[in-house]
Amino acid sequence: MLRYQTAGESHGPQLTAIVSGFPAGVPVAPEDINRDLARRQKGYGRGGRMNIEKDRVQFLSGIRFGLSIGSPITLVIPNLDFQNWQDVMSPLPASEDISRRVTRPRPGHADLPGALKYGHKDARNILERSSARETAARVAVGALCKTLLKQFNIDVFSHVIRIADVQAKPDSLSFDEIKQAASVSDLSCADVNASQRMKKKIDEAKAKGDTVGGVAEIIAMGVPVGLGGVMNWEERLDGILAGAIMSIPSVKGVEIGIGFTAAGIFGSLVHDEIFYAPTKPKALNGHGPSGGFYRKTNNAGGIEGGISNGEPVVIHAAFKPIPTMMTPKRSVDLVTKEPFDASKERSDVCAVPAAAVVAEAMTAFILAQAFIAKFGGDSMGEMKKNYDSYIQYLKRY
Amino acid sequence: MLRYQTAGESHGPQLTAIVSGFPAGVPVAPEDINRDLARRQKGYGRGGRMNIEKDRVQFLSGIRFGLSIGSPITLVIPNLDFQNWQDVMSPLPASEDISRRVTRPRPGHADLPGALKYGHKDARNILERSSARETAARVAVGALCKTLLKQFNIDVFSHVIRIADVQAKPDSLSFDEIKQAASVSDLSCADVNASQRMKKKIDEAKAKGDTVGGVAEIIAMGVPVGLGGVMNWEERLDGILAGAIMSIPSVKGVEIGIGFTAAGIFGSLVHDEIFYAPTKPKALNGHGPSGGFYRKTNNAGGIEGGISNGEPVVIHAAFKPIPTMMTPKRSVDLVTKEPFDASKERSDVCAVPAAAVVAEAMTAFILAQAFIAKFGGDSMGEMKKNYDSYIQYLKRY
Amino acid sequence: MLRYQTAGESHGPQLTAIVSGFPAGVPVAPEDINRDLARRQKGYGRGGRMNIEKDRVQFLSGIRFGLSIGSPITLVIPNLDFQNWQDVMSPLPASEDISRRVTRPRPGHADLPGALKYGHKDARNILERSSARETAARVAVGALCKTLLKQFNIDVFSHVIRIADVQAKPDSLSFDEIKQAASVSDLSCADVNASQRMKKKIDEAKAKGDTVGGVAEIIAMGVPVGLGGVMNWEERLDGILAGAIMSIPSVKGVEIGIGFTAAGIFGSLVHDEIFYAPTKPKALNGHGPSGGFYRKTNNAGGIEGGISNGEPVVIHAAFKPIPTMMTPKRSVDLVTKEPFDASKERSDVCAVPAAAVVAEAMTAFILAQAFIAKFGGDSMGEMKKNYDSYIQYLKRY
Amino acid sequence: MLRYQTAGESHGPQLTAIVSGFPAGVPVAPEDINRDLARRQKGYGRGGRMNIEKDRVQFLSGIRFGLSIGSPITLVIPNLDFQNWQDVMSPLPASEDISRRVTRPRPGHADLPGALKYGHKDARNILERSSARETAARVAVGALCKTLLKQFNIDVFSHVIRIADVQAKPDSLSFDEIKQAASVSDLSCADVNASQRMKKKIDEAKAKGDTVGGVAEIIAMGVPVGLGGVMNWEERLDGILAGAIMSIPSVKGVEIGIGFTAAGIFGSLVHDEIFYAPTKPKALNGHGPSGGFYRKTNNAGGIEGGISNGEPVVIHAAFKPIPTMMTPKRSVDLVTKEPFDASKERSDVCAVPAAAVVAEAMTAFILAQAFIAKFGGDSMGEMKKNYDSYIQYLKRY
Repeated sequence: MLRYQTAGESHGPQLTAIVSGFPAGVPVAPEDINRDLARRQKGYGRGGRMNIEKDRVQFLSGIRFGLSIGSPITLVIPNLDFQNWQDVMSPLPASEDISRRVTRPRPGHADLPGALKYGHKDARNILERSSARETAARVAVGALCKTLLKQFNIDVFSHVIRIADVQAKPDSLSFDEIKQAASVSDLSCADVNASQRMKKKIDEAKAKGDTVGGVAEIIAMGVPVGLGGVMNWEERLDGILAGAIMSIPSVKGVEIGIGFTAAGIFGSLVHDEIFYAPTKPKALNGHGPSGGFYRKTNNAGGIEGGISNGEPVVIHAAFKPIPTMMTPKRSVDLVTKEPFDASKERSDVCAVPAAAVVAEAMTAFILAQAFIAKFGGDSMGEMKKNYDSYIQYLKRY
Repeated sequence: MLRYQTAGESHGPQLTAIVSGFPAGVPVAPEDINRDLARRQKGYGRGGRMNIEKDRVQFLSGIRFGLSIGSPITLVIPNLDFQNWQDVMSPLPASEDISRRVTRPRPGHADLPGALKYGHKDARNILERSSARETAARVAVGALCKTLLKQFNIDVFSHVIRIADVQAKPDSLSFDEIKQAASVSDLSCADVNASQRMKKKIDEAKAKGDTVGGVAEIIAMGVPVGLGGVMNWEERLDGILAGAIMSIPSVKGVEIGIGFTAAGIFGSLVHDEIFYAPTKPKALNGHGPSGGFYRKTNNAGGIEGGISNGEPVVIHAAFKPIPTMMTPKRSVDLVTKEPFDASKERSDVCAVPAAAVVAEAMTAFILAQAFIAKFGGDSMGEMKKNYDSYIQYLKRY
Repeated sequence: MLRYQTAGESHGPQLTAIVSGFPAGVPVAPEDINRDLARRQKGYGRGGRMNIEKDRVQFLSGIRFGLSIGSPITLVIPNLDFQNWQDVMSPLPASEDISRRVTRPRPGHADLPGALKYGHKDARNILERSSARETAARVAVGALCKTLLKQFNIDVFSHVIRIADVQAKPDSLSFDEIKQAASVSDLSCADVNASQRMKKKIDEAKAKGDTVGGVAEIIAMGVPVGLGGVMNWEERLDGILAGAIMSIPSVKGVEIGIGFTAAGIFGSLVHDEIFYAPTKPKALNGHGPSGGFYRKTNNAGGIEGGISNGEPVVIHAAFKPIPTMMTPKRSVDLVTKEPFDASKERSDVCAVPAAAVVAEAMTAFILAQAFIAKFGGDSMGEMKKNYDSYIQYLKRY
Repeated sequence: MLRYQTAGESHGPQLTAIVSGFPAGVPVAPEDINRDLARRQKGYGRGGRMNIEKDRVQFLSGIRFGLSIGSPITLVIPNLDFQNWQDVMSPLPASEDISRRVTRPRPGHADLPGALKYGHKDARNILERSSARETAARVAVGALCKTLLKQFNIDVFSHVIRIADVQAKPDSLSFDEIKQAASVSDLSCADVNASQRMKKKIDEAKAKGDTVGGVAEIIAMGVPVGLGGVMNWEERLDGILAGAIMSIPSVKGVEIGIGFTAAGIFGSLVHDEIFYAPTKPKALNGHGPSGGFYRKTNNAGGIEGGISNGEPVVIHAAFKPIPTMMTPKRSVDLVTKEPFDASKERSDVCAVPAAAVVAEAMTAFILAQAFIAKFGGDSMGEMKKNYDSYIQYLKRY
């Protein structure tokens, strides 16, 4: 089974990810990973640290001469800022300088529940790991998974569809056009007009010392019918994807397809009718193999009954605003139990474009996992034969 | 680890659930389970079959003299209608009557992707398991988990907050009042006014041969700080809950706390400030142990950084309308590839109150699992001591 | 992933097993399961209860018209003796008759550690589940797995090679001959001479009020090269098999291939040389597909580096003697802490032939699980195509 | 749940292990790990490379100021020899020098089954990971687990009891004496006489260009009653331990307690009688908490019914001789299919003392995992309270 494990503190020497269960023979180059790492560091509304960390991956196992070899793959992302933190983050038994403890938990972070759960009085022991820095490792893992999916013409991308109350309306664009438009937007937004208003909203928040969140849409094109499963609850692709997306720091809502909208309209407007053409119409936007069956709508977001149905998988993730802000927020010291004002100087106002890249990564990981579960195979050669044989079966079904 | 496995076809002899990892010494009686089974079968907008199945649980292992003994617990719910289906559902090698095959997949169901995935031409082999009937087994499991949670004063309940476009506004009620009001509503809705309009909407849908969905709120009161985890993505309680909720048939959206709303407003309005009182104010609505720390708002829905923070856990689940309806929907025959009209006589118009009970059940299961992971213990006696010791620690933190 | 969950007390109404992840389209008939259930109840040296329980499986889900359909398969084995135990095993809250508690733990059983672990003073709450009766459910699961393996010409069987200090020497027989000879022996022993001496040893033990154990050899023929894995410790087929075998009650030792013998001789005598013939010699005994590569010896027992190598998988399991016996054994009452004599009237003297069937079952389960992991596929049709494609690849390698 | 993931090729830059689920607040110092890493590199009969690699661990996450903090712990062991292998092991897309491929699989290694499974023609892609070098990472993980176990007075150690056909007889020694004697023996053997004969056997093998294996005994003292479980097969401590031990390269046999010997003698000689003393006799050798219950024999090896019973856990692991040797062994080239002689210059003759350290490590990991599952707790403080409360319960049982 494809799985991954990450480790690393925000100000420690590095982030480490180990991916295991990745088949042998997949072409993988550092640029494949670095591209997404760079995307995670960009976006209108980001502040200072993003300029310090220029994330670059190192392959320390599992890849040889540009191909995965079947063994666990170690991805390392050094924390370039570590040199300034060696004392504070030392692993060695040492007399800790208690005056440097972080005893002031920030609302909206893991600081307080984490300190209580793990028995710490220094919240740094929590925040170093709960920091969004950890998502850089997930992005590296997701980018690796994309190299596998690409071999089967599955393309996972994302775009921002809302910042605060500004909604993008890229409805007239095809998924290919959306992808293209988002790739050249510093908000990952395919609607140029909305983009301008989003930036104003971000500027407004910045001026107030406040922060904003938003919504991203993640799209996977080319997903074949049959990933996931309906026979056991833990196998349902929608559940697995939702769990993975909600596990991203700051995500508070997930939708598959039209999501909450489906709860508000009549059934006759929701369910996607089924059509058939031995050769499907060309205009179909990002569909994956499903024999000659296809849909003209995709309200289901590509998943019915927990199984991919051959239409693009479409997910929405709602991100709350960044909790660290200059606006006064009351909190209580862990040690003294005295109240204090938790406001902080901080230059980040909006992290939605970056968070969208993380959501992409989790989607790519889950789809790669489901893909490997369905097609088995320890090598690209074997997987391709199994996949091709399934595609033939679908055509003749 | 607490886990469960269910089995059983919709028209087979029975549903079976086996729960393992349940501690010894928990008082369990059939009424504990039957109560929720009955709740799942009720609700304004349900039709015929619900009157046939009067679900009653049988305990076939793991419980002795009214107490769990630590061994796997077998819960069986007979399908009372099975006698009429013995030929169609026979396990024995027999010449199947091909004319009785179901070859017409319904949009919005697992029928088509399932038939393609598992290689069936008879969609009955899919729909018997993908049927919402399976959720009765989940409700039994959830009700069992509630007996454990109850020992620690954790109470999981739900209420309907939207049917189609009719929104309930029970904002002035406490959680206790909501629970009470919902328990006497045939829509599980705590807002009497909204309830009336919801019923009209259901009647309208019925008159049109259409269906409606809605949104339920699931609330867990008394959850202590510290369930879940922030150190690994798979341990985050919000992710696990979202995955479990999204795995319920017909769910297309999940929110924790204010969910998508958080994406639309400034950060200063989102994050819950932290307060402290050695003895917390009495008025607090459903909070669980977290030392003297508490919040006056709960936008986070009781989870920060993937860890429960002592406030009530609040989840929203969006259910799409029932896919089977009288309104014409186009589809394609699996064998002939000819188009057909997938409309059906069906008396169910709205299943949201029932689905809410399923969402409760999944929430109870996940919380029980996280609770056991945190407090260890193979028996109630041991768990109670570990729990009490943790509560003492929180008080003295 | 193929997995199973069993439940059921020894004197409860039934044993239940649910197998999930079993592909659709595998022919399964009750006789496939009942045959092995009957084998588990036989064997020279068994006593009374075996005549009461005539185990017969019931299929309650997952199988339709003689074929698996892809949903979880429920296997039920009623405990025919239950009618006499309804009061003692009642699940209902009731005033337990304390005088009927079992407070006298038997050495060699789970009674004492189980009572302490789960907080019981009535050891019946442990022994009902720790009883070897539970292995009937495992045998049913294993027999089901064999129906899948059979589709790929993999045959799992066992024979007894030692009872107490009597060693069988069937070295001159081929595996086919061993299988045949064991199938007609009431000790599952392929060496007729040794068999006679084994029976004498059993009779001797019986006369003394004592018990005996022994060793079984489990053989899987036709296993293709490539099951298991070397890249992660949990994927190694030898480790997984050893864990599954050691989990059988009364097993205290496991060997793969020549096992402990390998530790005692020079390396030059241990490692199996590699040969190649485009068409392998016919005489090869039970080899599975591995291209043209083959061995003339099989000291490795078919597994090198945690991966099946195409030779028969050969496992030895050492079973300790039955702990319940007439010979005096000292123990201590759970309540009074008074010593007592734990000897019991019991007619079972030797259960090795039955235990061998359980070891077969666990082997079949693990191999089926590894097989499905390698070849993927949700249906027999898909698996066969993937398997055939792999065999073609091996031939052309 | 405690788990670990390792990665790294034998001639790659480093080995990496990530341990997650390790509680916060455990004192950990580099020497704790380095001590066992050094032990793994020693032993009479080792050759050249062991002198190159002077393994030292680096902590790259999860440990701060000498204490675990609850986050995943990254352990890195650099491969000092890497500088000589950078070209051969480059991860970058490059024109591989085909002439340097390893196409000659060695009998007794994963080379052939691995190459066939993963689709490689260069066996280096297998042997780099299947190499015993990987076990250094396991030893680091095991040493980390020992730091946790030590907090609860659980001590895991090992000694060699057989090399080839030379058997040690340390029967007159207590476990403490055995541990002491083994620690000063360059064969980890507590029997000085046997040691001499073992060395002669190793010298003899070396002179012949041959290799030898042996048997190690792993002992865990202080294990409390109640680890593992009897309710589900996967929870049984004996099964889990056996699986972990058999997953070690070169292990072909595992015993718990007297193992195969139990299969050869009468039941009356096997099962350990139960005694009780409110204060247990002092002479008891390494027993763990189990209330006042104890045994005078330990044929069960500390596990009954899959549950630890408070006596020392005793495991035997049988290691086959090192497969790489100077003695001629026939094999077949992967590409040309031509036979060749697989003999190699190699200075390692016996690796049993090192392998014993690996078996210790796996035992420590499994016991720590079972310990955490039983006692829950996210921090040492919480675990200690839960553990102490359990010990009190045992005393009053």
